Amino acid sequence: MGADSYTLLSKINSPSDLKKLKETELIPLCEELRKYIIEITSTNPGHLGASLGVIELTVAIHYVFDTPDDKLVWDVGHQAYAHKILTGRREAFVNNRKYNGISGFPKMSESEYDSFGVGHASTSISSVLGMAVASQLDNNKERNHIAVIGDGAMTGGMAFEGLNHASTTNANILVVLNDNGMAINENVGALSKYLIRLSTSHTYNQFKNKIWNILSYRNRTRARSTVQQIQNAIKGSILKSSNLFESLGFRYFGPIDGHDVISMVRYLQDIKKIKGAKLLHCLTVKGKGLKQAETDQTLYHAPGVFDKKTGEIISIPSCPDTIETYQKVFGETICELANKNEKIIGVTPAMASGCSLDIMMKKIPRRTFDVGIAEQHAVTFSAGMAANGYIPFCNIYSSFLQRSYDQIIHDVALQKLHVIFCIDRAGLVGEDGPTHHGVYDLAYLRCIPDLIIASPLNEMELRNMMYTAVHTPLPFAIRYPRGKGTKNGWKNKPFTSMPIGKGTVLTQGDENTAILSIGHIGNNVLKAIQSIEKKHNKKVSAYDMRFLKPLDEELLHSICSRYKHIITIENGTIIGGLGSAVADFITQHAYSCSLEKMGIPDRFIQQGSIEELHNESNINISHIIDTILKYL
Amino acid sequence: MGADSYTLLSKINSPSDLKKLKETELIPLCEELRKYIIEITSTNPGHLGASLGVIELTVAIHYVFDTPDDKLVWDVGHQAYAHKILTGRREAFVNNRKYNGISGFPKMSESEYDSFGVGHASTSISSVLGMAVASQLDNNKERNHIAVIGDGAMTGGMAFEGLNHASTTNANILVVLNDNGMAINENVGALSKYLIRLSTSHTYNQFKNKIWNILSYRNRTRARSTVQQIQNAIKGSILKSSNLFESLGFRYFGPIDGHDVISMVRYLQDIKKIKGAKLLHCLTVKGKGLKQAETDQTLYHAPGVFDKKTGEIISIPSCPDTIETYQKVFGETICELANKNEKIIGVTPAMASGCSLDIMMKKIPRRTFDVGIAEQHAVTFSAGMAANGYIPFCNIYSSFLQRSYDQIIHDVALQKLHVIFCIDRAGLVGEDGPTHHGVYDLAYLRCIPDLIIASPLNEMELRNMMYTAVHTPLPFAIRYPRGKGTKNGWKNKPFTSMPIGKGTVLTQGDENTAILSIGHIGNNVLKAIQSIEKKHNKKVSAYDMRFLKPLDEELLHSICSRYKHIITIENGTIIGGLGSAVADFITQHAYSCSLEKMGIPDRFIQQGSIEELHNESNINISHIIDTILKYL
Repeated sequence: MGADSYTLLSKINSPSDLKKLKETELIPLCEELRKYIIEITSTNPGHLGASLGVIELTVAIHYVFDTPDDKLVWDVGHQAYAHKILTGRREAFVNNRKYNGISGFPKMSESEYDSFGVGHASTSISSVLGMAVASQLDNNKERNHIAVIGDGAMTGGMAFEGLNHASTTNANILVVLNDNGMAINENVGALSKYLIRLSTSHTYNQFKNKIWNILSYRNRTRARSTVQQIQNAIKGSILKSSNLFESLGFRYFGPIDGHDVISMVRYLQDIKKIKGAKLLHCLTVKGKGLKQAETDQTLYHAPGVFDKKTGEIISIPSCPDTIETYQKVFGETICELANKNEKIIGVTPAMASGCSLDIMMKKIPRRTFDVGIAEQHAVTFSAGMAANGYIPFCNIYSSFLQRSYDQIIHDVALQKLHVIFCIDRAGLVGEDGPTHHGVYDLAYLRCIPDLIIASPLNEMELRNMMYTAVHTPLPFAIRYPRGKGTKNGWKNKPFTSMPIGKGTVLTQGDENTAILSIGHIGNNVLKAIQSIEKKHNKKVSAYDMRFLKPLDEELLHSICSRYKHIITIENGTIIGGLGSAVADFITQHAYSCSLEKMGIPDRFIQQGSIEELHNESNINISHIIDTILKYL
Repeated sequence: MGADSYTLLSKINSPSDLKKLKETELIPLCEELRKYIIEITSTNPGHLGASLGVIELTVAIHYVFDTPDDKLVWDVGHQAYAHKILTGRREAFVNNRKYNGISGFPKMSESEYDSFGVGHASTSISSVLGMAVASQLDNNKERNHIAVIGDGAMTGGMAFEGLNHASTTNANILVVLNDNGMAINENVGALSKYLIRLSTSHTYNQFKNKIWNILSYRNRTRARSTVQQIQNAIKGSILKSSNLFESLGFRYFGPIDGHDVISMVRYLQDIKKIKGAKLLHCLTVKGKGLKQAETDQTLYHAPGVFDKKTGEIISIPSCPDTIETYQKVFGETICELANKNEKIIGVTPAMASGCSLDIMMKKIPRRTFDVGIAEQHAVTFSAGMAANGYIPFCNIYSSFLQRSYDQIIHDVALQKLHVIFCIDRAGLVGEDGPTHHGVYDLAYLRCIPDLIIASPLNEMELRNMMYTAVHTPLPFAIRYPRGKGTKNGWKNKPFTSMPIGKGTVLTQGDENTAILSIGHIGNNVLKAIQSIEKKHNKKVSAYDMRFLKPLDEELLHSICSRYKHIITIENGTIIGGLGSAVADFITQHAYSCSLEKMGIPDRFIQQGSIEELHNESNINISHIIDTILKYL
């Protein structure tokens, strides 16, 4: 960074440097931080909007509190860029989200200032409460424990569980509610509406003024004392729990302007003196300081590359053949299906734009539901609709679906309800890293009875699997990755039903080696085989299993009895998914063929580009080639 | 049932018969119902306390509403005995919870009056909302949708997710909050305290009276008009969201006496006319009508066999050798360990008595936490403590642990935090049935990196595994079943560290067949082998793997290279657990031994005695014998 354009920021290597600044210097510091975040993320994309919204809040917290001794947890954590920059990672920030760079989220192993790793929503109150209770047991009465949580993450049930427990412990915990009215899309639900009401009504003061006016025709002195008595009566009864957070035993402060850094500092200094469970309600603007980001907050949640001066998004020239994403295929296909069948419903827990359900939301709003950050509710709400004859497509990212694991078993599969899970972001997801990799789903779903588990090779298969799922009245899971499919020509094609539990031949080679894959990774297999055919003039057999469950046993019998060597490959954990299913099959039927499993190794994979991570996991094309060649 | 002692009840075969009664007849009907439930459960044990508490509520709901067209969901569902009896299952109730009898929980496949199957807490609002939205889409404006949920279940985050979504839909939903101040143990958390305040303060009326008193020295007429104006001011501002449920967009009614059936009927008749999201707060007494059950509500949650007249619990003569349960071993061992190490913590989500953490709660209350029905929070709260140097034992039943699957991966394993999961009720659980069988854990945990997964053969091993886990600073899961161990003599024995990832020899036979087991089921293996030795004079080898992860590869190499036939057995799904791990190993290393897997088949297993269910699942002793004999 140029030291001249970052006069203050360039000197801050830790919060102790920050504390040397005068209060008035915090305002220009915030501007420098804002400029720096915009500059870096304009070329190295990341979560822009959320981080711009909490710059003043971040500066104020580190100015007032004594991190890392005071514990600070950022809920979700994609808003923690300013936090990272102020806590020794200013220069490292240029490698934000890159392979071997710093994580896009707080991470315990990266810095002592990251008190707890995050990525998924609504974990901050529980984790901070754990730390606060630990301090209590240590008889440390001075340590502060701060959870910064957005109004979006506050809709997740886990946050409520934490709130419910907190005040009963008497632990020293400050929840900073970062209220910007947004999740990635506009925040939804009663809580969101309530926060707006709370912010705009200034209820108590307004009420006091009204009482004053009612009584004002009387003797002023007398009225004052009466007003005082009424106020006391209110405080003693109604007001004690007049506020949702006060009902849960928190002392509520705010709402305050989250972009007035000086006021924030003073507020926090005052609140710091108060022990117990406190909640500070801050009003912020997502994308603050970059006009386009303030205007289109969903687009600028993670805008990709943009012009740091104008804010214009720079579209990277895509493949000339305009191949579209699986997300777009999902979004358009559900509309097509829903237009034909009025029982079809779309459900998303706050990921409408990410999974492209926003297409249906615009076209068929009555049958599209964004339920907020609430994966558990999303699944059981879908199950309730299915119990009454509807066919919900419940679209949840693979790693977030872990939140509703119990509901899939207990509310859907056990009752054989016709809920269709579209599992987006399956497999390694790239720059979001280990909290977001959707690699466990095949393993954790395979043990559930009566659940169909499928994964498409390409866009046409996704379309046809969705169509097939509509006509198969059973719990049905379809997993697919983020990003581009493979070819054009899927649009508006007639639907074809796919036989349940049937795989298919991709290529036919000799009887030495067969590769079995599931899902989009089969395209890597095809490329590997083409390369081998070209270079070595050998044909290799490949099969796309399509369904992990029910497994195509007929096909497997024919494969296992014909081939000497079998290789399985999947974009999922090497433990528990397709490879394990084939191992189970081979041993069950005592086949003598060898089996080599390719998949995500049994360790947490960090962030990086998809290619880098596939490389690390040994599932890229060159690795498939090498593996096949071992057997040829 | 004797028709003479059940004059009214004997005539009620469906809610339409109930509707023929006069309102005044409902009181004696409730008494008959109470008597019948006590009579039947006194000899055929079940969930007594919760069902006695909602008799009047059940009668009132079925009297006022038009079930099954109106949708009714009982949260958790163990309180639904009166509901079952009134909806055509009066005679079938004698086989409650029995193999091939009716389920102890509402179940869609059992009756059209069971709108949604239940078992786990906090699902009712989400499922009922799904149904209510379905009715909206059907343009059915008259249908009612009722969720009956306890104050305990209301602390589960999922309930909050449902509340948050509900009012935004304008759907027609009535939440009946059955407030008895209890989960299985006394309910905890801020919500619980709030409900007590709400019930006892009668806030608004109290406030009105105070204002009246303050102003009363003035001219009465004038004061009345002033009070009126002040009241309007309150209604217009503060009171609009003065109540937690009103904050979330529900119309709040109550609290009312949940044992006054006539009042309840009238209340419900009034509320029925109001559309949208409503909450009726009912105060009930768990165990109502049986003195002992009212007094000791935790014990009488599910008391076992008791004297229907006196209420005295009849203790079934236990084995003379006084073998104790794994639960007791856990409860006493954690105290022993915690006495030696002040960093050890006990955490339970509302299952203190069930898992025996109540022993530590009494002895070391400062380090024991019942966090309410909140599995997600329990795990991340534990992770927060571990991040600050504590060693929490987080005890959760296997099937409830499904609720915190994401937290295990995202908050514990990914950060390699030293949280010890004691997974109680692992394996088939018996009479509670398919919602409660803890059979998926081995499969869903095995794919998680850096997690140690162990299961003890007996009490001593549980003790030593807990001890070992304390001294192994990694995420550590120990699963064990409900009920009795195998022998005496575990108490106060010196602790021995168990080598991580090492199995052990149980019996040594010839080199034909080896049986590999994990956990308590190994005792069945031992009995089977003893029987074979006696009858067939053959020795069979058996190994206890102890750890599913890390797997004892050294031992497996030696086994696979020596034996012709390997049999695995586990009290968990046949897909994904020990058997699959061994299949993975055999295929990975190209061993030629055969493998036969025994475990819970890939379908949902219903309720019954453990023996009946083991029999159905082919994992009982005689089945193990038959399987071994195939290979001898």
